[in-house]
Amino acid sequence: MNHFLSVHDVTNINDLVAAGLKAKSDPFAGQHLGKNKTIGLLFFNQSFRTRISTQKAAENLGLKVISLNVGSDSWGLEMEDGVFMDGSKAEHVKEAAAVIGRFCNIVGVRSFAGLEDRDSDYAEQVFHQFKRYAGVPIVNLESATRHPLQSLADCITIAEYKPVERPKVVLTWLPHIKPLPQAVANSFAEWMNRSDVEFVITHPEGYELAPQFAGDARVVCDQREALEGAHFVYGKNWSSYNRYGQMLTDGRGWEITEEKMALTDNGYFMHCLPVRRNLKVTDGVLDSPQSLVIEQAANREWSAQAVLREILLGL
Amino acid sequence: MNHFLSVHDVTNINDLVAAGLKAKSDPFAGQHLGKNKTIGLLFFNQSFRTRISTQKAAENLGLKVISLNVGSDSWGLEMEDGVFMDGSKAEHVKEAAAVIGRFCNIVGVRSFAGLEDRDSDYAEQVFHQFKRYAGVPIVNLESATRHPLQSLADCITIAEYKPVERPKVVLTWLPHIKPLPQAVANSFAEWMNRSDVEFVITHPEGYELAPQFAGDARVVCDQREALEGAHFVYGKNWSSYNRYGQMLTDGRGWEITEEKMALTDNGYFMHCLPVRRNLKVTDGVLDSPQSLVIEQAANREWSAQAVLREILLGL
Amino acid sequence: MNHFLSVHDVTNINDLVAAGLKAKSDPFAGQHLGKNKTIGLLFFNQSFRTRISTQKAAENLGLKVISLNVGSDSWGLEMEDGVFMDGSKAEHVKEAAAVIGRFCNIVGVRSFAGLEDRDSDYAEQVFHQFKRYAGVPIVNLESATRHPLQSLADCITIAEYKPVERPKVVLTWLPHIKPLPQAVANSFAEWMNRSDVEFVITHPEGYELAPQFAGDARVVCDQREALEGAHFVYGKNWSSYNRYGQMLTDGRGWEITEEKMALTDNGYFMHCLPVRRNLKVTDGVLDSPQSLVIEQAANREWSAQAVLREILLGL
Repeated sequence: MNHFLSVHDVTNINDLVAAGLKAKSDPFAGQHLGKNKTIGLLFFNQSFRTRISTQKAAENLGLKVISLNVGSDSWGLEMEDGVFMDGSKAEHVKEAAAVIGRFCNIVGVRSFAGLEDRDSDYAEQVFHQFKRYAGVPIVNLESATRHPLQSLADCITIAEYKPVERPKVVLTWLPHIKPLPQAVANSFAEWMNRSDVEFVITHPEGYELAPQFAGDARVVCDQREALEGAHFVYGKNWSSYNRYGQMLTDGRGWEITEEKMALTDNGYFMHCLPVRRNLKVTDGVLDSPQSLVIEQAANREWSAQAVLREILLGL
Repeated sequence: MNHFLSVHDVTNINDLVAAGLKAKSDPFAGQHLGKNKTIGLLFFNQSFRTRISTQKAAENLGLKVISLNVGSDSWGLEMEDGVFMDGSKAEHVKEAAAVIGRFCNIVGVRSFAGLEDRDSDYAEQVFHQFKRYAGVPIVNLESATRHPLQSLADCITIAEYKPVERPKVVLTWLPHIKPLPQAVANSFAEWMNRSDVEFVITHPEGYELAPQFAGDARVVCDQREALEGAHFVYGKNWSSYNRYGQMLTDGRGWEITEEKMALTDNGYFMHCLPVRRNLKVTDGVLDSPQSLVIEQAANREWSAQAVLREILLGL
Repeated sequence: MNHFLSVHDVTNINDLVAAGLKAKSDPFAGQHLGKNKTIGLLFFNQSFRTRISTQKAAENLGLKVISLNVGSDSWGLEMEDGVFMDGSKAEHVKEAAAVIGRFCNIVGVRSFAGLEDRDSDYAEQVFHQFKRYAGVPIVNLESATRHPLQSLADCITIAEYKPVERPKVVLTWLPHIKPLPQAVANSFAEWMNRSDVEFVITHPEGYELAPQFAGDARVVCDQREALEGAHFVYGKNWSSYNRYGQMLTDGRGWEITEEKMALTDNGYFMHCLPVRRNLKVTDGVLDSPQSLVIEQAANREWSAQAVLREILLGL
C-alpha cells in the first residue's frame, strides 16, 4: 500500500481486517518497523479518537509522532493552484506538503467538508494536493467525503461479532441538531459494498448518498422495515447530498430505541462516536450489551496499525 | 494505589514522599516499568508545570504520553447522566472516558472549579465520571477541589527543608485580582492535617475553607500572629467557600513582605505558582534564599513520578 | 556552545555547516547524545517548519521533546522586572524560566517582534530573561530580531549549491500585504557578513536594515542591478526599521519573476517560507528547478541538529 485515502487503495479488505486483529492480539510485534521513522499528523479539524488511536498505533510500531493543528499551531494553507496570495492564507499547500514530506516518512491529514460547495468538497482537493506534493504516503484521517480508518475499524468489529457468515448490516440515518458531512456514511457504504454482507441503507427522503458511494446497496425508506432481522445497526447522521449540506427534517422518529432494536435479529448497535445520547440513540441502547460503540472505537487503534504497518512494509 | 484523586488514595504519605526523593536522586531507575504503556493527559484547563512535570515523570518511567486539550483539540464533553444531548456538548463522558481507557493504561485529568455552583464543584463530577467509566487508574492533575500532585510535591519540599522534626507550617491567604478556586488550599490542608507538622491557617474573615478540608487545623485570624515562629509560610489566594466563589475583600495588607517574613523562625516561603509578584508577595521575598517556589515546582516531577510508579506497580 | 541566540554564539560557521551536512548524511549517528535528556519548546507564536524540524532533530539525537504553546496551553508571561502584577499576565518569566529550566536540559523559545516599540523589540527581553533565569542553554526558535536556525539552514543550502567558491548572494526585499518583522533579513545579513560570499542587499528606499545587522554589506537600490550575476537570490519581506514597523510602499515591481531571474548567473531562488505565491514571487520561479525553497526548509532539520548536538556535547 502506498497511500491510504479510500477503500480503492486496499488490495484485499479481508487481509487488512486480519492484520488489524493480529495487531490487537500482539500489539508490539512490529515495533522494529517504524524505527527511526516519523509520522506527521496534520489536523485541519478537531479530533479525539483519531488523534489518540493513530498516535498509539504509530508508537506501537516504533514510529515517532509529530502532531500539528493547522491554522492554530501553524498557518492557514492555500489549496488552489495559480492564486495571487494576498488573502488570509499565508502558505501554499505546495510548499507545506513538500516540506512536511521532507521531515516525515508518512503524513496523516484530517480535513472535513465545508458543506458549502459540493463540487469543492467532493473534489477532495486537500488530499489530492498533499498526495501530489508531499512525496510520501498520505493517510486519510477523515476527509470531506470519507473516513476509511473508521470504516476499517467497523469491518474489524463486524468480523469479531458477526453471528452468521453473511450478516445483515443496516446503515440508518439518525437525527441531529446541525448539518454534518456525509464522510462516515459514504465511507461505510463503500466498504460494506465490497464486503460479504447483506447491506441495507435507510434514511428519510432527500438524504440519498452520492451514487458513487451508495453503489448497489439496497435502500429501504421505512426504517422499521430495514431493521428487521438486522445483525448490525450502524447509526449516523448526515446532511443532504442532493440539496447539499442542508437539513431537510428534524428527524423526529428516526432515533434508535430499544423498541426498534427489538425488530432486529438480536442485532448489535454501532456508531463511530461522538454520539449525542437520547437525541440520536437512547441511553438504553447505548448502555446495553448489544452496543459495540466502545469496542468499535477501541478498534480504531488496530485499523490504524494495520494500515501503517502495510505502508511501512512498502517504504 | 489504583486511582490518585486525593490523599485518601494514599496508604502512607511518608512512603510516597520517600519514593519521590528516591526518584529525584535516581530518575531513570524505573524506566522499564512503563515499557509499552501509555498515559493520556486530558486538559479541560490550562497547564504549565503540571503538563510538563507529568509528561517528564511519565517519560522517566518509560511511559508514552498522549496529551489532549479537551474542547479545542477535541470536543466538549457532557458530564450529566440521562441528558437529551441537543446542546453544545457533542460527546458524553461515558463514551469519552471508556474510549480513552481503551487506548491508555493510565489517564490524567485536569478540570478546574467553575466557581458558580458549589454543590456541583464539590461533587467533583468530572473525576467521578472518569473513574466510573474509564476502567483504568485516574490521576488528578487538579480538580475543582483538590490538587494532590501539588500537595505531594509540597510535602517532599517540606521534608527536604524542615529544620526541626515537627515544623510549624502556616497556610496564609494572599490577595488576588479575581476569584480563584479553593483547590490548592484545600488539598494542602488535607495533606498537612495528615502530616507530622504544626499546621496553622490564616485568612481574612469569610474565607474559611470547607470543614472537610480545614479539619482540625488551628485557624488564626491575625496573620502576623500566625506567622510567628513559622518554619514554612505557604501562600495562596482562594475565593470564599461560604459565599461561594466570591471575593470579599481586596486583601490589602495580606501580601507577604520581607518584614512579615522576619516574624518567622527564619521561615521558608512556598507557593504553588503561578504567582503574581508584588501583588501577593514582594520581589524581595521571592528573590531571597528563603523562597522555595522553584524547588517546589521542580519537585512536581518527583511527586508525579512517585505516584505513577506506584500505579504502574499495581497494574 | 552554551546558548544559541545569534551568530555571536557560533565559534566557526563553517564547522557548524559541516556538522549540519554530516547530520544530513547520517541522521542517527548521535542518537546516544540525548539519552535521558529533554528539550522544552516554548511557542509564543505560531510555527510550522521550526516546530517540526526542531522536534525531528531533537529526536534524531535521542532527546525527549515537550512542546508548549504559551498563552493557550499555559499562561501569559510578564517579562518586566519589578512589576506589580495586577494585569492580564498571571506568571512572571523569572518563575516560568527557572521552572522549565529544572524540567528541561535545553529550552527553545519562539517570540516574534510586536512591531509597536522598536526599543522593546530590539532589546530582545524575552530571550534575555530566559537566558538569565532558566539556568540551561536557550535556543532561539525566532526572536524579535533574529532567526539563526533559519540562517544556518540557509548557509548549509548555499554550501550545497554554490557553483563557485565565493558566490554572489543577493538579499532582496519583496512585497507583502502586511508589516512583517525584520528578523529573518537581519539574521541572514548577520550570517552572510561573516561568510565567504559577495553579499548585496536591495530594497526600496526607507527599508534599510538596522546598522548592526546590515554591517558592511553593499546596498544597491536598483533591484535589477543588484540581481545581475547573482548565484543566489534570497527573497524576503520586512517592514521599515527607521519608521518602525511601517509599510512604506505596496512594493509593486519588487516581486521576483522569471524575467528577473534571467538577469542572474543561472541563480538559485531562496526563501525561508511561508511564501505568498505570485505576490512575492511567481509560480514560474517557485516551480522551476532553480528554486531551493524546499531544500532550504528541509535543511532546517540539519541546522537544528548541528546546534543541538553542539549544545549536548557541552552539557
